[in-house]
Amino acid sequence: MARSEQTRRDILAKAVDLASVEGLEGLTIGRLADAISMSKSGLFAHFGSKEELQLAVVETAREVFAREVLSGPAEAEAGLARLAHLSFAWLGYVEKGHFRGGCFFAAVSSEVDDRPGRVRDRVIDLTRSWVESLEAEAAEAVAAGELEAGTDPDQLAFEVHAFVQEANWAFQLHGDAAAFRRAGRAIDRALRADATGAGLAVLDGARAHR
Amino acid sequence: MARSEQTRRDILAKAVDLASVEGLEGLTIGRLADAISMSKSGLFAHFGSKEELQLAVVETAREVFAREVLSGPAEAEAGLARLAHLSFAWLGYVEKGHFRGGCFFAAVSSEVDDRPGRVRDRVIDLTRSWVESLEAEAAEAVAAGELEAGTDPDQLAFEVHAFVQEANWAFQLHGDAAAFRRAGRAIDRALRADATGAGLAVLDGARAHR
Repeated sequence: MARSEQTRRDILAKAVDLASVEGLEGLTIGRLADAISMSKSGLFAHFGSKEELQLAVVETAREVFAREVLSGPAEAEAGLARLAHLSFAWLGYVEKGHFRGGCFFAAVSSEVDDRPGRVRDRVIDLTRSWVESLEAEAAEAVAAGELEAGTDPDQLAFEVHAFVQEANWAFQLHGDAAAFRRAGRAIDRALRADATGAGLAVLDGARAHR
Repeated sequence: MARSEQTRRDILAKAVDLASVEGLEGLTIGRLADAISMSKSGLFAHFGSKEELQLAVVETAREVFAREVLSGPAEAEAGLARLAHLSFAWLGYVEKGHFRGGCFFAAVSSEVDDRPGRVRDRVIDLTRSWVESLEAEAAEAVAAGELEAGTDPDQLAFEVHAFVQEANWAFQLHGDAAAFRRAGRAIDRALRADATGAGLAVLDGARAHR
């Protein structure tokens, strides 16, 4: 059992990397079997169908994201500190290039958005929940007086989220590595734009720990 | 000849819409033939190969973009006025939903970025040239004293470009129509952040004409 579970994990690690490059639709059991030199019948035994394989790949991407992006910042104080840590942890993760095709969820978004089904629903749930995490920290920052009263938390989350996705896009399509630095500057500026004195102190503290 | 040219245009109008939904890789001559109820041999007579068809679709998307986004703002004065007009014309175009799959170039970016070839090269050229147009207007705005000396034009173009792409992403994947309003607010704020008094006057004038 333990060995079978390990095999499944090894397969999925390769499958999620392949999907970041070629997309989820192309991730058939036959294509994956070719790519990792394994028999189709062996893969069928693990996943049963293309949809189950795709769903397992999405869950693997979620686990990697949680481990690489969410684990450190969870210890930061709720509000502006955690928003800054989450934003820069995400940017660093994308820049590090964990998957060959860059951000997994960005890579599959435009592919799944027009294909109703369980895979699309799961990608929507996960990406929406990530946006909502950023919104929640921004709202907490307003409540804690770290951002000026009247600041729209959803607007700030929208902007921060946009910068990381843009850096991923510019690097993946244009090979523009400067985009990560630009995104970092943009995030820092957006976080500071409506910060109060208390908020600026929090941001300075968060920067010292990066 | 004229009739054949019109047929070709009609085919391409449908093909670019289909590609915005299903992607460029799926746009085989066979798939297109099914979708528009035309014979494969008829399509081969027009395009010859899948790659020629894909390249023709990219050119069609470029022509639509030029007509819908570039034609009006070209008359605005170079610098901050034209940057504002271009940015909001692009946002309005994406919001209008000209293609079923949203922004064509965003829809195909993550698909082509890992597939070397003429199609990828053309998509890279066109998207890079669009970013460079925004950068050039921002640089002109600095030179004209509409933005503070020391403003990084590429940084401003990066941010504006990010907001429109984010709105497209949020609407396509999450059905979040509020994203267009957020992008508009974000663009306006980014343009104003480093504007001089002269620049602010230009932006107020540009807004009055929207």
